[in-house]
Amino acid sequence: MSFFRDPILLINFKVYEQSIGRGALALGKAAERVYLDFKGSATVIVAPPFTELRTLVESLEVPVFAQHADPVELGAHTGSIPPEAVKESGARGFIANHSERRLRLDEIAFLVEKAKHLGLGIVVCATRPREAAAVSVLEPHMVAIEPPELIGTGLAVSRVKPEVVTESVATIRKYNADIVILTGAGISSPEDAEAAVFLGTSGVLVSSAIVKSKEPERVMRGMVEAMIRAVEKRKSQAYT
Amino acid sequence: MSFFRDPILLINFKVYEQSIGRGALALGKAAERVYLDFKGSATVIVAPPFTELRTLVESLEVPVFAQHADPVELGAHTGSIPPEAVKESGARGFIANHSERRLRLDEIAFLVEKAKHLGLGIVVCATRPREAAAVSVLEPHMVAIEPPELIGTGLAVSRVKPEVVTESVATIRKYNADIVILTGAGISSPEDAEAAVFLGTSGVLVSSAIVKSKEPERVMRGMVEAMIRAVEKRKSQAYT
Amino acid sequence: MSFFRDPILLINFKVYEQSIGRGALALGKAAERVYLDFKGSATVIVAPPFTELRTLVESLEVPVFAQHADPVELGAHTGSIPPEAVKESGARGFIANHSERRLRLDEIAFLVEKAKHLGLGIVVCATRPREAAAVSVLEPHMVAIEPPELIGTGLAVSRVKPEVVTESVATIRKYNADIVILTGAGISSPEDAEAAVFLGTSGVLVSSAIVKSKEPERVMRGMVEAMIRAVEKRKSQAYT
Amino acid sequence: MSFFRDPILLINFKVYEQSIGRGALALGKAAERVYLDFKGSATVIVAPPFTELRTLVESLEVPVFAQHADPVELGAHTGSIPPEAVKESGARGFIANHSERRLRLDEIAFLVEKAKHLGLGIVVCATRPREAAAVSVLEPHMVAIEPPELIGTGLAVSRVKPEVVTESVATIRKYNADIVILTGAGISSPEDAEAAVFLGTSGVLVSSAIVKSKEPERVMRGMVEAMIRAVEKRKSQAYT
Repeated sequence: MSFFRDPILLINFKVYEQSIGRGALALGKAAERVYLDFKGSATVIVAPPFTELRTLVESLEVPVFAQHADPVELGAHTGSIPPEAVKESGARGFIANHSERRLRLDEIAFLVEKAKHLGLGIVVCATRPREAAAVSVLEPHMVAIEPPELIGTGLAVSRVKPEVVTESVATIRKYNADIVILTGAGISSPEDAEAAVFLGTSGVLVSSAIVKSKEPERVMRGMVEAMIRAVEKRKSQAYT
Repeated sequence: MSFFRDPILLINFKVYEQSIGRGALALGKAAERVYLDFKGSATVIVAPPFTELRTLVESLEVPVFAQHADPVELGAHTGSIPPEAVKESGARGFIANHSERRLRLDEIAFLVEKAKHLGLGIVVCATRPREAAAVSVLEPHMVAIEPPELIGTGLAVSRVKPEVVTESVATIRKYNADIVILTGAGISSPEDAEAAVFLGTSGVLVSSAIVKSKEPERVMRGMVEAMIRAVEKRKSQAYT
Repeated sequence: MSFFRDPILLINFKVYEQSIGRGALALGKAAERVYLDFKGSATVIVAPPFTELRTLVESLEVPVFAQHADPVELGAHTGSIPPEAVKESGARGFIANHSERRLRLDEIAFLVEKAKHLGLGIVVCATRPREAAAVSVLEPHMVAIEPPELIGTGLAVSRVKPEVVTESVATIRKYNADIVILTGAGISSPEDAEAAVFLGTSGVLVSSAIVKSKEPERVMRGMVEAMIRAVEKRKSQAYT
Repeated sequence: MSFFRDPILLINFKVYEQSIGRGALALGKAAERVYLDFKGSATVIVAPPFTELRTLVESLEVPVFAQHADPVELGAHTGSIPPEAVKESGARGFIANHSERRLRLDEIAFLVEKAKHLGLGIVVCATRPREAAAVSVLEPHMVAIEPPELIGTGLAVSRVKPEVVTESVATIRKYNADIVILTGAGISSPEDAEAAVFLGTSGVLVSSAIVKSKEPERVMRGMVEAMIRAVEKRKSQAYT
């Protein structure tokens, strides 16, 4: 995952009406334009449903992640998508343990190992700071912090509870110096994204604020620009 | 599902190495040839993993089913594939409650209603005769009988335990006169498929015997021919 | 379960503060008084948490059910309570597939068979009428109807949606003439219980309206009396 | 948990025929004799099924743990046993995330916090060394190492794969200096228990080797004595 450059905008399509078929492709194309415009100074990643994975990979240059992978090996499984099937689709990685698809600890451990073995990126979601720290011991590439009380509220943790972000970052860093940390709950505006990065995370995991927007591309662009500003601000503070 | 003609060969790709990427397409093409050769006297359906669904639908004439659908509405779900996403991919239906992906009763009821509402076919798997009867009360298009003691044994219920098939058929028919009944455990040869149809079911649900075969097309063809023979035999007996 | 006489008041203690320790025993004693007072004309059953099961069985005459049983055989299971362990505690039966503890169809089938084999009573919960009908094909002793839209609302299905009760009863009766039908969602007053029985069910499954009441015994007594009245009313109508 | 003295013999009754009713009490009494005989130099803990919890607590002096607790608060839950209900029964703690009852990471985190809040001990099981390390970041009182390849084999990790024990201990100690580490897979003889303690863990989690033994007390006694010997040996080596 060293090929992804900070700051990162990871767009979880979930399965809204806008996330399947033509909608998925349109969102993907918008993301691709933003991705190409900011290449070198930011990264955009899209995470469509399994059924749209291959089409987006084949049509677009923007990196594609799956929203999940099942903690199983290739074999006699019906309805499951093991990491190998994600890899085969051409996707570059996957999200795991999202609050809407929680996994057992042993399953997360399996998926982290498997992702690394296959050369896939993996973002593991976690809620409380200590949980995020436990996840970071498993050494996935990225961890996304989602305080449970803010999930689905439209309230950005980075602005409503900035101390949760800074505390999470501090707790995680005690156990893992390298892991990429994303902010993942309730990010709905460029200001939220800016705060997330300014508080010390490397980017954001966003869904409805983009997917259900009437102007998704404008929101993506605004978030990427805001995060780049935050990176600059952080650097300039560091030099003071 | 009235558009599907007896006997039916439903091929569950599962997620073997042969079931993803080029392997999925090759299996699909073989199935398409058999499907086209027997059109009018038998039906072949393929069920690839979610990630291969759209590619197979767009490349092939053979009907495509998903291996599963998640019992949720479109919306804020991560990593789930609701029936609407299956529909959007162009698939004609899906399998539910497979022994490798068991569902709660309320979830099966939800999926049956939703499939019908969307015009998708639905095959619900069940093990014991009484369970299959309970499923048939929910009125899915098809039910597949999988006696638990034969799942994954390579022993065909239609030949090892013919009485389970006939008992299941009899029990199901008490509650549902129209449902299409498939035989689903351990079918591994044309003879197994023939017995399944001769015993009163409308076809078979097959996986590894085809997917892991060195000559999958030959096995498909043999099974379809054997089932057509069984239909004839049954008819001629009926007239005697 | 033929030893239980209509109408039935089944009290699910759940795990409120009032449902454990002394609270459980106090509730059980109140239920016992009502049970003894109406013996011969109604049945009261209590369903405390697993941890209180044996104490209540040993201290009280009122019949005791478990709130759940795990669909496993005796053996190497940690944290599970198989039906045999419920039986051993002296309980007379158990609830299964409650909306707060949904089960897979194959698990319900297993539990029904096992309960009968062990001589335990079993009440299976179900939501929609068709689901309840599917359950009734498995032939448990009792089925409890819980329309999902009324669960936990404090609105009694028997009064807010009487047609759901009558439709459920009619649908179930098509498939099973003998099963005992309880009404299980939102019963919170004697009037609700009366309506439930008047509409054709044999009793009610009640929780918070009794457990969280300041006068649980008064509520129990009121419900039993109301149900007895409803039985009389139904009989007198039948003779007209 | 500072009240528990090394070495520790934690006996998981599971739900064998011998683990319920009179069997549970007999096992508990044997454990109590061993516990009393070695008080001051070792600790014995018994973990019976939920349904036997209160009886054992009320009849015996040996400390009692539950085999599991559900990650929920007191309230409207049916069939669940929250930590508060375990506490109320008089048990001193509970096991969590056993290989036969795996939990999601967020559930483990919830249970650890809750156990500490209630003054209950908590042993969290984990398989691979890195998983055990992740668990130790959550700071439960104890962690039990169960290498998946040895679970249920009757082969003791401490003797067949001693390097897994030492590696696990080393990995865990990087993240948590104080946590009590138990060895939990396949311990079936005093020699296995001795090796487990000699390799640096504080005791063992044992089930069938005791529960299904014809002479459970003799096995318990043998294991405790062997562990005390191992502690001595370790000390004497440390001084050399």
